[in-house]
Amino acid sequence: MRRFVVLGHRAITSADFKLDDLSGSTGRLDILLRCVNSAFFISHDIRRDVEITLMLLGEPRPPKTVRIVGSEVKYLNPDERSTAALIRNALLQRPSGEKRTSPGIYVSERSYSEVLSNISKESQMHYLKEDGEDVRQCAFGDDNTFVLGDDQDLTDEEEKTLMEYSPKKISLGPISYHADHCLTVVNNELDRRRNASLR
Amino acid sequence: MRRFVVLGHRAITSADFKLDDLSGSTGRLDILLRCVNSAFFISHDIRRDVEITLMLLGEPRPPKTVRIVGSEVKYLNPDERSTAALIRNALLQRPSGEKRTSPGIYVSERSYSEVLSNISKESQMHYLKEDGEDVRQCAFGDDNTFVLGDDQDLTDEEEKTLMEYSPKKISLGPISYHADHCLTVVNNELDRRRNASLR
Repeated sequence: MRRFVVLGHRAITSADFKLDDLSGSTGRLDILLRCVNSAFFISHDIRRDVEITLMLLGEPRPPKTVRIVGSEVKYLNPDERSTAALIRNALLQRPSGEKRTSPGIYVSERSYSEVLSNISKESQMHYLKEDGEDVRQCAFGDDNTFVLGDDQDLTDEEEKTLMEYSPKKISLGPISYHADHCLTVVNNELDRRRNASLR
Repeated sequence: MRRFVVLGHRAITSADFKLDDLSGSTGRLDILLRCVNSAFFISHDIRRDVEITLMLLGEPRPPKTVRIVGSEVKYLNPDERSTAALIRNALLQRPSGEKRTSPGIYVSERSYSEVLSNISKESQMHYLKEDGEDVRQCAFGDDNTFVLGDDQDLTDEEEKTLMEYSPKKISLGPISYHADHCLTVVNNELDRRRNASLR
């Protein structure tokens, strides 16, 4: 199982946005949309062993937490606009617990610390960080969670919360990448590990 | 220098499309848009040593060839819609040679074989192919060109044309990826090589 948690520090928390202006009027929700693409899509298929949690932390009603489950998800397409429509639909809800808004898509008002505490204790936490261990040298178990920010690093407080889970700090290369590209590189590394273990 | 050539087999060759329906009405131009993002964007910057050539081969007037030059490009943003607007603007032109339609963006009616023949002889060609050599084992020089299809493999004829340039066949992992994810993985590998050579 691969789990990604992406913090959208300014991402809009209402459905009151236009699909025509995703990068301008949504607090950079567009970054999270591209992360959804990178998390799930492979050639002619969707990764069923992946789950992504998008933390929307912007105005007007933070937090809104959208969890997308690869083993259940339907109607997901690679383009930004259609994923935005699915998330906008989820944001119409103001659930008390976690509510399914379409197959494989769940919305809640869980906080970041609740999200982390809900992740299986079996899952090794990883913190994507420039000064971490090279991902290619890192040992991976079967269940891995990767936490990263949008275009902003984790705040000191968010980092402190994550540190309670003893994450491994991992680096993806000598350059700092966009969040969606980070997910692609992580997926490629884990694909190689799984393939090696099956040989 | 890194060069990418992406063949959009059905990609629309007129400006007669809506920015609101990029994945439905453009012959999968959306795939090429995501490739532009993967080719250029790094955290808080654009890769200046990258050039991408999008081959639009669909109706009504193929080919249309859009070349984007990282060292010159302006007004490029990571989202699909704004890149689509830049390309739509280029497609309004019917140039005799190659015409600059905005800084760093050029449109022409060059064929695929012309595009390949215009690439510097110094540039090593690479063909992204599942049965190729593992990219991590591949030796790279300073100037590299990578050729790949959109969601369709190269046709036999396109492959034959490419073979005239003695490309290295390279594979990115055990799974077949979307074209934009391929570019991200290639960029990550070359970032690592350059960094190693600078040490």
